[in-house]
Amino acid sequence: MFESANLKHHVDKAAYKREAAKLRQALLDTQYDLKQKGRFPVLILVAGVEGAGKSETVNLLNEWMDPRHIITSAFFAPSDEERERPALWRFWRALPPKGKIGIYFGAWHTMPIIRRVRRDIGEGEYAREISEIQRFEKMLCDEGVLLLKYWFHLSRGQQKKRMKELAGDPKTRWRVTERDQEYFKLYKRFVKVSEPFLRKTSTGEAPWIVVPGADARHRTLTVGKHLLAALRERLDEKPLKRLPDRTPPLPKPADKLNVLRALELDQPMTKAAFGKELEKWQGRLNVASRDPRFKQLSVVAVFEGNDAAGKGGAIRRVTSALDARCYTNISIAAPTEEERAQPYLWRFWRHVPRNGRFALFDRSWYGRVLVERVEGFCSEADWMRAYTEINDFEGALLRHGTVVVKFWLAVSKEEQFRRFKAREKVAFKRFKITAEDWRNRKKWDRYETAVCEMVDRTSTSLAPWTLVEANNKYHARIKVLKTLCRAVEAALKTTSKAGVRKGGKKKK
Amino acid sequence: MFESANLKHHVDKAAYKREAAKLRQALLDTQYDLKQKGRFPVLILVAGVEGAGKSETVNLLNEWMDPRHIITSAFFAPSDEERERPALWRFWRALPPKGKIGIYFGAWHTMPIIRRVRRDIGEGEYAREISEIQRFEKMLCDEGVLLLKYWFHLSRGQQKKRMKELAGDPKTRWRVTERDQEYFKLYKRFVKVSEPFLRKTSTGEAPWIVVPGADARHRTLTVGKHLLAALRERLDEKPLKRLPDRTPPLPKPADKLNVLRALELDQPMTKAAFGKELEKWQGRLNVASRDPRFKQLSVVAVFEGNDAAGKGGAIRRVTSALDARCYTNISIAAPTEEERAQPYLWRFWRHVPRNGRFALFDRSWYGRVLVERVEGFCSEADWMRAYTEINDFEGALLRHGTVVVKFWLAVSKEEQFRRFKAREKVAFKRFKITAEDWRNRKKWDRYETAVCEMVDRTSTSLAPWTLVEANNKYHARIKVLKTLCRAVEAALKTTSKAGVRKGGKKKK
Repeated sequence: MFESANLKHHVDKAAYKREAAKLRQALLDTQYDLKQKGRFPVLILVAGVEGAGKSETVNLLNEWMDPRHIITSAFFAPSDEERERPALWRFWRALPPKGKIGIYFGAWHTMPIIRRVRRDIGEGEYAREISEIQRFEKMLCDEGVLLLKYWFHLSRGQQKKRMKELAGDPKTRWRVTERDQEYFKLYKRFVKVSEPFLRKTSTGEAPWIVVPGADARHRTLTVGKHLLAALRERLDEKPLKRLPDRTPPLPKPADKLNVLRALELDQPMTKAAFGKELEKWQGRLNVASRDPRFKQLSVVAVFEGNDAAGKGGAIRRVTSALDARCYTNISIAAPTEEERAQPYLWRFWRHVPRNGRFALFDRSWYGRVLVERVEGFCSEADWMRAYTEINDFEGALLRHGTVVVKFWLAVSKEEQFRRFKAREKVAFKRFKITAEDWRNRKKWDRYETAVCEMVDRTSTSLAPWTLVEANNKYHARIKVLKTLCRAVEAALKTTSKAGVRKGGKKKK
Repeated sequence: MFESANLKHHVDKAAYKREAAKLRQALLDTQYDLKQKGRFPVLILVAGVEGAGKSETVNLLNEWMDPRHIITSAFFAPSDEERERPALWRFWRALPPKGKIGIYFGAWHTMPIIRRVRRDIGEGEYAREISEIQRFEKMLCDEGVLLLKYWFHLSRGQQKKRMKELAGDPKTRWRVTERDQEYFKLYKRFVKVSEPFLRKTSTGEAPWIVVPGADARHRTLTVGKHLLAALRERLDEKPLKRLPDRTPPLPKPADKLNVLRALELDQPMTKAAFGKELEKWQGRLNVASRDPRFKQLSVVAVFEGNDAAGKGGAIRRVTSALDARCYTNISIAAPTEEERAQPYLWRFWRHVPRNGRFALFDRSWYGRVLVERVEGFCSEADWMRAYTEINDFEGALLRHGTVVVKFWLAVSKEEQFRRFKAREKVAFKRFKITAEDWRNRKKWDRYETAVCEMVDRTSTSLAPWTLVEANNKYHARIKVLKTLCRAVEAALKTTSKAGVRKGGKKKK
């Protein structure tokens, strides 16, 4: 990867002056074109060895372009907010929206490389992390992000020289920190560990661009010209009317049986029995949520179901067992303007809870493979790849130690009809029933197919779907409470007070 | 993954008869349509638990369609031919060409799953293998293969019942082999290991289709209908005039310096010195090739270079040091009809040598990122992804223990001119110079860019490019011989007589 970068590149002052002036103007123009067209976000990763001009380049880009439309994020030690969430969270929250440029000074590559350099992780774990990064970057590209990855390189000799220069000058001595010195000693190993990383995470859509870092003028022109060319190419591309369909169809059922029809939707439970059970499980959930070990955990609960299946009611029975400071209710409707300018999962990542908290999602990321699929709000390719992306998302939650519970509340078509009619009659319930509900009802079978495929493709041993027979609300609410409570209790058992949850961290 | 498949699916006889007759006719028609259009190959993977009807389904597909255009391959214990090559070789050699259907009874998923079930490999190694499979299948899909992956499933109860039935009937008792019994005991673990595998290797383009295996009629209709729908969808899709360009450009050089221009092409060596050196290195190479440990090794040597740079001459100096039984010379020209009907790398995989052999490639898979790129024989997306695919290919060779050496023979533009002219003058050399050579020469700069990017993106610590200054043929030939010889000697040192090479198997 570093053959070209190891050469002694050089651009003389006069040539630089000539080119830089033109380049600067063109970059600014292009940035405004990007802003105006607003078709895609640009994400620039700045990576590489110490002292190779990363910081200078970031400053320069901000100087040359309009910094109001550049979001620069440096990822040093994570904050407590960040530490208490999956590692990817900090990168999701900083993503630039369509029309803007994000610059990441260090990114998801940093920690795996450093940990491997320090031998904190072995080859196997390193391979696993690389594979996750491949999948994450593929998702970004599939979502339309223009991902530009610059790796700033110095040959060993160049790095030695540069460190000496910096340390020798009292004005720049402060920049040679202790950590840099340590890195310098590790230079050879750093390059050895980085090289296969760059190779394996270089793809046609997001190749690493290795930038020789020693000559400032050469470096600046290399990055500036490439950035300009990449922006222009994407901006000038005419949008296609039709995209190639490379996803095969999913199988049609050969009989009438499926996971929903196999349910016995009418489950017996009297009001009296409900009252007793409710008290019992709410009590247990409350105790669990106040367990000191719960501070090491978080809970993500997903509530999906037919219209009028009782999601809201079930959620209320959960929240009334909890201290209001330890849960958030997230009701998912049509995405906001800000959310539409981001990759699909962004609007869910933003609500991922920190440790010690519950996040209760009334509808969720599964909208992609349910309503968006059935209503044609996204292409087949989009919802087909969503199964993988959702599994990766939940995998990240699980690895962090988050408890993930997912409920599908199922009512029969007849029961739904009764509830719709009832809602229309009762004044204070009328807001709960709209023309859209009636329209959705006409697509009952297509939703059923989508639900069954969702269950098959996203139910996992650590984040299984719980199908809830919901014709009887009492039964449904207790089943939800009980399942959630048991999942939290099981997680507590594998959590030590001081440390980390064992079960959640275990590789599947 | 198995929620739906665990249900008691059933199709009654009458319904089956009705549907099967239509389905059979439609499949046959579609197969002929595929054959006639010949636009893409179809690869069907048949996988899953024992006793779930895999074999029956394969037989039925062959019965229903024209078996002359179906290539069925069962992958049991590898032959010695296969064992002495990288694990993927057997799958490459069996790939169906465009217009045909290949059925793989067991495939690349089999060994990783079994080895993980038996705990021969840990989580880390399993993750690495899964990641490789993801990349391999992505390559197949990018190359236009319609990849259909069927996983035949039985619930635990169903499997128990089926085994009992088979064992109880004298006519079928033979089918319950000892290995099946062993698998059966491992059923629970098998499912536990398979489930994340299926999830992680399910993509939008090649999702696993889980087939409930217990009811033969249901199973047959499920697979048959899905196969038909998948074939029809792809066959009926109108080819697009333009594909979306999702690859950013590579950077343009900011100065005149590159890895080729940094070479001192005129290296001194007299004819006399050459004779002495030649004897020395040919002797050493010959000794190395006859070392008993060499039986555990193989060598792949790639010769690329400017036209008239002396590739042929350098190769002849290597081969004349070797026993004719232990090397093959592979000269790569335009692909044959058979080769054009296959994924790009197929025509190189077919020449991968078995242990104890040298394969010397006069031009190679690097054509994709050199001539095909410069001449526009493939799209930018194709050659951009080729860097990754080539690295994966060579990675597979290295993991098997193959020594990979790669030479770029570089001459100056002036030296090339002299040689072209000389070739035109000498009668017996005239076949070596064509109008195309002169045409290529006009694109010197574009080839130079392509070569530099190739070196940067595919030179690795275990399979580095050796740039050979070739204005002086004597120097070039000795540098090639010496480099090759040293690489073989180094590999021998890490190889034990009986066993496996250590260095090659080491993870990077």
